[in-house]
Amino acid sequence: MTEENSTTGAYVEAGKEFTRDTHYIETRITADGRDGYPVEPGRYRLIVARACPWANRAIIVRRLLGLEDVLSMGMCGPTHDKRSWTFDLDPDGLDPVLKIPRLQDAYFARFPEYPRGITVPAIVDVPTGQVVTNNYPQITLDLSTQWSQYHREGAPQLYPEHLRTEIDEVADLIFRDVNNGVYRCGFAGSQEAYDAAYERLFARLDWLTDRLSGQRYLVGDTITEADVRLFTTLVRFDPVYHGHFKCNRSKLSEMPVLWAYARDLFQTPGFGDTVDFAQIKRHYYVVHTDINPTQIVPAGPDLANWLTPHGRESLGGRPFGDGTPPLPPKPGEVVPARDWVPVHSPA
Amino acid sequence: MTEENSTTGAYVEAGKEFTRDTHYIETRITADGRDGYPVEPGRYRLIVARACPWANRAIIVRRLLGLEDVLSMGMCGPTHDKRSWTFDLDPDGLDPVLKIPRLQDAYFARFPEYPRGITVPAIVDVPTGQVVTNNYPQITLDLSTQWSQYHREGAPQLYPEHLRTEIDEVADLIFRDVNNGVYRCGFAGSQEAYDAAYERLFARLDWLTDRLSGQRYLVGDTITEADVRLFTTLVRFDPVYHGHFKCNRSKLSEMPVLWAYARDLFQTPGFGDTVDFAQIKRHYYVVHTDINPTQIVPAGPDLANWLTPHGRESLGGRPFGDGTPPLPPKPGEVVPARDWVPVHSPA
Repeated sequence: MTEENSTTGAYVEAGKEFTRDTHYIETRITADGRDGYPVEPGRYRLIVARACPWANRAIIVRRLLGLEDVLSMGMCGPTHDKRSWTFDLDPDGLDPVLKIPRLQDAYFARFPEYPRGITVPAIVDVPTGQVVTNNYPQITLDLSTQWSQYHREGAPQLYPEHLRTEIDEVADLIFRDVNNGVYRCGFAGSQEAYDAAYERLFARLDWLTDRLSGQRYLVGDTITEADVRLFTTLVRFDPVYHGHFKCNRSKLSEMPVLWAYARDLFQTPGFGDTVDFAQIKRHYYVVHTDINPTQIVPAGPDLANWLTPHGRESLGGRPFGDGTPPLPPKPGEVVPARDWVPVHSPA
Repeated sequence: MTEENSTTGAYVEAGKEFTRDTHYIETRITADGRDGYPVEPGRYRLIVARACPWANRAIIVRRLLGLEDVLSMGMCGPTHDKRSWTFDLDPDGLDPVLKIPRLQDAYFARFPEYPRGITVPAIVDVPTGQVVTNNYPQITLDLSTQWSQYHREGAPQLYPEHLRTEIDEVADLIFRDVNNGVYRCGFAGSQEAYDAAYERLFARLDWLTDRLSGQRYLVGDTITEADVRLFTTLVRFDPVYHGHFKCNRSKLSEMPVLWAYARDLFQTPGFGDTVDFAQIKRHYYVVHTDINPTQIVPAGPDLANWLTPHGRESLGGRPFGDGTPPLPPKPGEVVPARDWVPVHSPA
């Protein structure tokens, strides 16, 4: 995603609270093709940036469900300019399938006057080169419910029918206060807006601590969409949100229940192996010049502690339910060799 | 002190490392009056800001030595503009003794064309209203060595002759890598300058951890000037330097030896009772607009943990040597009722 005001290019607006534009391209790729885009192996390309928490959801869900061979993935670099994410990680600066340098080219191919932010995740129709959707909350749900014919053997039920109401309720609270809450802290245009966002964020984290102190996962006894959505914010908390967004009542690593929960997921195949801390840090600290004008990227924190034992097995729970963990990431989709492991090991 | 470039008003200079102007007014107040300013009860006024770590040294030493009744203290507010600290905390905006609104008035009274930063701590000659010195490393040493006739009964030896070489050596390393090192991180004008400062800072903190793991104080077995100089940086580490200056390999509270050492001092009369966390946070986050343009002050971190047991007594040591702790602060010099204790207690 991008969060700046698409008119001014600013993230922070003086005197105002941060308000996310939540209007997306609502076209869906469905099993029945009701919007003109039927599920079809090899036809679509998921465009992401590893840096982006909203795109990270889709990367995780695609891996957990084993959709790599039916839905290819293009990866933008961690930084972008005011208008578009770019394929600057690819050797010639072009996405190897879409042959475009900038994600906005796919948006403009369908909507020549597209007025909103050029966001990831987005799914592009390869034959036409046109964006189909960037509606990230729907994208992951549709991967679970519309692409089920192509799920791998042993894929987990991330959005099981009997738990959908509860997942939706929990995910909505997490979105408002946590996923978007950290941005409301970081991009607050007044002390009052910041203070209010901070209170809401940590009140919700306390609520989540209560909820997760006796159960291993957020809803039911297996990983679901709700866990995916919370994880992508928690994993960015200490490297970015704690300092850059001033979410600093404490670090995640100082909140024992949430820290163990986050490490449990991090160490679960399909979660931590999608996380590129170097890209995450670079994205936030370089792109948000109105809160970090020097663009200097902090060297810390020490992140090796993500691999320490979490002890959450004692709560029971079956991460993949009746299913199995995914295989390791495909070649070409492996996060570069742990370049985030710091020189200094923890004391 | 102030750290901005006195020509440009900037703290960060693009492409450059941060270089502190270490030229001060070198006039000394001495027992023999060799510079024209003899030690004399009631004649001088120490001007500080509680926010400033360099001034905090003088506040602590004055209290430890019991000089309150012979050397009065004026307190500037936590924020200042490009040219001067101001007496905005005083009811009518005037220092009640000097009757001036801005510290620069005392500088200009002696040096009408004073070209450098208007810094705290400064000592002003009350009869003439002229600044005598702002040479902070000398000020605290002179309080120890030149004002000894007026020390309270039981005052500690902060700069004993037989330890001076060692204190000077340790203090020099701490100044370069820690006291000034955090500023070199925060005001780095390039990633390279930041990275180098960060490495030096944490290498020195590791060295200090080694040194302090087997002994209670930095030099000898009592508190000295060296401890005062390290303390004023450590106490600002988690509330400010960790996030604002990107000194984020870990929080102080995650470095067990230094964290226990800092709490030991904090809980020693004369140290923690001089610390105003609210003013400290406000100073850094409001004044340094080139690294925090929004001027929003973070609500965290939770600081109640400064009062937890530190266990350093087991290392032996006699904080005040053959002396005694100071009495509580005088009325009018008490830090406002712990407004930094957070709403949320630690988990």
